[in-house]
Amino acid sequence: MNKSIVLLSGGLDSSTTLYFAKSKGYSCHCLIFDYGQRHKKEIAAAKLIARASECPLEVVQIALPWKGSALLDKAIQLPKNQKLGRTGIPPTYVPARNIIFLSFAASYAEAIGARHIFIGANAVDYSGYPDCRPDFMRAYQAMLAKGLKAGVQGKGIQVETPLIHLSKAQIVRLARKLGVPTEKTWSCYQGGAKPCGVCDSCRLREKGFNSVNSVRPTLTRTNLQKRSSGQPK
Amino acid sequence: MNKSIVLLSGGLDSSTTLYFAKSKGYSCHCLIFDYGQRHKKEIAAAKLIARASECPLEVVQIALPWKGSALLDKAIQLPKNQKLGRTGIPPTYVPARNIIFLSFAASYAEAIGARHIFIGANAVDYSGYPDCRPDFMRAYQAMLAKGLKAGVQGKGIQVETPLIHLSKAQIVRLARKLGVPTEKTWSCYQGGAKPCGVCDSCRLREKGFNSVNSVRPTLTRTNLQKRSSGQPK
Repeated sequence: MNKSIVLLSGGLDSSTTLYFAKSKGYSCHCLIFDYGQRHKKEIAAAKLIARASECPLEVVQIALPWKGSALLDKAIQLPKNQKLGRTGIPPTYVPARNIIFLSFAASYAEAIGARHIFIGANAVDYSGYPDCRPDFMRAYQAMLAKGLKAGVQGKGIQVETPLIHLSKAQIVRLARKLGVPTEKTWSCYQGGAKPCGVCDSCRLREKGFNSVNSVRPTLTRTNLQKRSSGQPK
Repeated sequence: MNKSIVLLSGGLDSSTTLYFAKSKGYSCHCLIFDYGQRHKKEIAAAKLIARASECPLEVVQIALPWKGSALLDKAIQLPKNQKLGRTGIPPTYVPARNIIFLSFAASYAEAIGARHIFIGANAVDYSGYPDCRPDFMRAYQAMLAKGLKAGVQGKGIQVETPLIHLSKAQIVRLARKLGVPTEKTWSCYQGGAKPCGVCDSCRLREKGFNSVNSVRPTLTRTNLQKRSSGQPK
């Protein structure tokens, strides 16, 4: 079966990407990072999603000794109620985050003989991150072709970005069509009992669900505690 | 002062690269990885070198859940007394190793405002690793320009490879000229009391020192224990 690595973050986009890859017949190996982010709720959500999709999940521990982002450093304020679609790179940008995540995915792919890496990056309703744009993904792909054993042997590893040109509304529709259990996903940058509703990630998610006149599904603490036992490794 | 990140492995090449960067006036921030390699002796050696050069060193912990290399998995035999200069990728290749290491260096560089990453990759007397070639380094550089905040803001981060076109003999001469304390470096893939002398890394090192009629300096266990207290963080 065609093996793939799926970068999972527990949010709507990466979960939809996982279900998309599954729908295309890939055997998916999920990867998430415990990298000192503000909260661990996204890891718990990723475990729920991986279990629901019956795919294995690896949690990679990374101790980043430096900060430089509102997602790593609680002393930096998270932006609230910002205008969506604004330009500029927000303080939630983590230096080289997707570059690091994709590099582990490439290593994992080579180690298990997978030829595809799926990432739920999105360049339409994105938050201004340079490492979510098609230009970057093409450059990453070109770099892998030069630096990996698989690359120089002509069996390249492809970076797949099925959501990159979709709006949040289109992602919500795709998630519905694929049967993604969106109530298990967590998008909020905060790790509270309920999503804060004012961070960029909450507002983009809300915009998506509002656009398709759908109730915004919420991963509650009770739901999380009830379902998080017996998670896939 | 012009800040730079130096990927240090405790071996001859990366140590020479550090001293080279220092000689060019860079303020060097060294980086080494504890990634489940066969032995920790290279980390101890890197600490000695960082201390000798009076540069700070960060040790980044990475728990790679997969194997796929003789440097990660003791069940895979290390090649012994192989012909140097042979073609093909040896079993000591670690999937995406330099891709991962450079990605952390890029993150660190952005976090502290450094504009240069030094890596001691060498494509002349190399062991067949695809991620040590100039082609790969150029592609990595191009990818950073697209994926980093610094890149899209036009303040690109440069990957510097001062040793890439040098032979081992030329590296040994450069190390001498720069005053690198080569007796503190460790190149052997094994972590024994003395270098094994038969792995690719030992043989390349020996070739370099023999070419310039120099005694091969050796980091002994006694030397290591004596000097490893009070290492730089």
